[in-house]
Amino acid sequence: MKRSALEAQIRAKKSVLCVGLDTDLEKIPPHLLNSEDPIFEFNKAIIDATHPYTVAYKPNLAFYEAEGLKGWQSLERTIRYLDENYPECFSIADAKRGDIGNTSARYAKAFFEELPFDSLTIAPYMGEDSVKPFLAYADKWIILLALTSNPGAADFQFLSVDAQTQLFERVLAKSQEWATEEELMFVVGATKAAFLEKVRKIAPNHFLLVPGVGAQGGSVSEVMQHGMGRDSAALLINSSRGIIYASAGEDFAEKAGAAAKALQAEMEGFL
Amino acid sequence: MKRSALEAQIRAKKSVLCVGLDTDLEKIPPHLLNSEDPIFEFNKAIIDATHPYTVAYKPNLAFYEAEGLKGWQSLERTIRYLDENYPECFSIADAKRGDIGNTSARYAKAFFEELPFDSLTIAPYMGEDSVKPFLAYADKWIILLALTSNPGAADFQFLSVDAQTQLFERVLAKSQEWATEEELMFVVGATKAAFLEKVRKIAPNHFLLVPGVGAQGGSVSEVMQHGMGRDSAALLINSSRGIIYASAGEDFAEKAGAAAKALQAEMEGFL
Repeated sequence: MKRSALEAQIRAKKSVLCVGLDTDLEKIPPHLLNSEDPIFEFNKAIIDATHPYTVAYKPNLAFYEAEGLKGWQSLERTIRYLDENYPECFSIADAKRGDIGNTSARYAKAFFEELPFDSLTIAPYMGEDSVKPFLAYADKWIILLALTSNPGAADFQFLSVDAQTQLFERVLAKSQEWATEEELMFVVGATKAAFLEKVRKIAPNHFLLVPGVGAQGGSVSEVMQHGMGRDSAALLINSSRGIIYASAGEDFAEKAGAAAKALQAEMEGFL
Repeated sequence: MKRSALEAQIRAKKSVLCVGLDTDLEKIPPHLLNSEDPIFEFNKAIIDATHPYTVAYKPNLAFYEAEGLKGWQSLERTIRYLDENYPECFSIADAKRGDIGNTSARYAKAFFEELPFDSLTIAPYMGEDSVKPFLAYADKWIILLALTSNPGAADFQFLSVDAQTQLFERVLAKSQEWATEEELMFVVGATKAAFLEKVRKIAPNHFLLVPGVGAQGGSVSEVMQHGMGRDSAALLINSSRGIIYASAGEDFAEKAGAAAKALQAEMEGFL
């Protein structure tokens, strides 16, 4: 997907909402468990109910791999359903891959050829040649981990690599030598104003994928106030559990739609 | 697998060889392409031919994911075949996973419960809570990326995080607070004496998984001379292409066996 198409969708829906499909057999409504592919049935209903308020969907690959072959099949069905029915929605494989060149090229094939994902999350530790192979695909995106929202982020991401720079800031700066704003986004798990402003000093216009809102405690309005880009919103704010598990009953899709609509309404004021 | 069992196997086979199963449909002998599952048939023949000289096998997940559902099935067959027929061999899912806690727990389930892998490679960027969930399994191992052998390693791994310490050294030191020598190994893509000695100062006794030998240019004898552990060999030296693609003809398995035997013979003198 081109940046202009994603931005047009954000303007049309007045939303920067990304719904995280962390679909878990132990948490989905019991009445779905009798269907042939409960994970897909759940995702399909969630997508159908939330798409008017949602610009992106992000399956978390771990939840699918944990179910083995069947999980991989549910993932494939989900992403094809999205691609065929709501091609305007941006899709993110939250896979956090990254390896040496010829191996990264294989991951790129997996997600950009075998499956029709628009983008993939990538870990930065192995540097440029672990990232470059993903850039060989037109209109596909990489979303590089820069700052994550978990406690362990402090172990390495906050280390000072020179007097003014922490490691996550170096990742934000260095990777801009490899890719343009039309193909590179960053994962920024920060919901605090001070961090968002630090990030925007280094990456004023890149799209940021911001997890940590909702169940993880972050505030949509703080992110919207301090995290938007210079020329456009340039944000995708992810919520997973707060939307997809809004109800554990037969009304799960309806309640998910309502939760998505509530977040969209918070966003609308800033767009 | 317990450390003592892996060490016993190393002594019995006089080998620290790990065979990398980077199995690629475009490179395997054409006569296999008519079989129902060419990737599995290839791997099975390679394992049967090389196991007398090999203590570990390492499927590179990217090569399997690139083939979609069929690839995942080939991986599953391969690891079950290895586990059933050569349970003394150590198995490594070269997946370079790592995510926040509840997601890492899913990856752990995928590789340690759904599949019978002994170990998994993990990226360190997200810190302690991205690693901990993998440690909940008795006799399973994590293999943390510390120093990789690709050119991009220089982008972040060599950054100085204090006057005496580069990032890869901090990863080696910090992670020892999280796990013991019985459950934590390191990927060290170094075949030069100076680097191996630096690593051994910080991790004198941990197992190191060393790629980069053979097709990637490293020398087995340099690694054996400078990389062994204080109390035991504590090395797994990986070769992929140099073994599995030793021949592209019908004799591919026989030639792979001979290539593995030649590397084992180089190792034997040091063990």
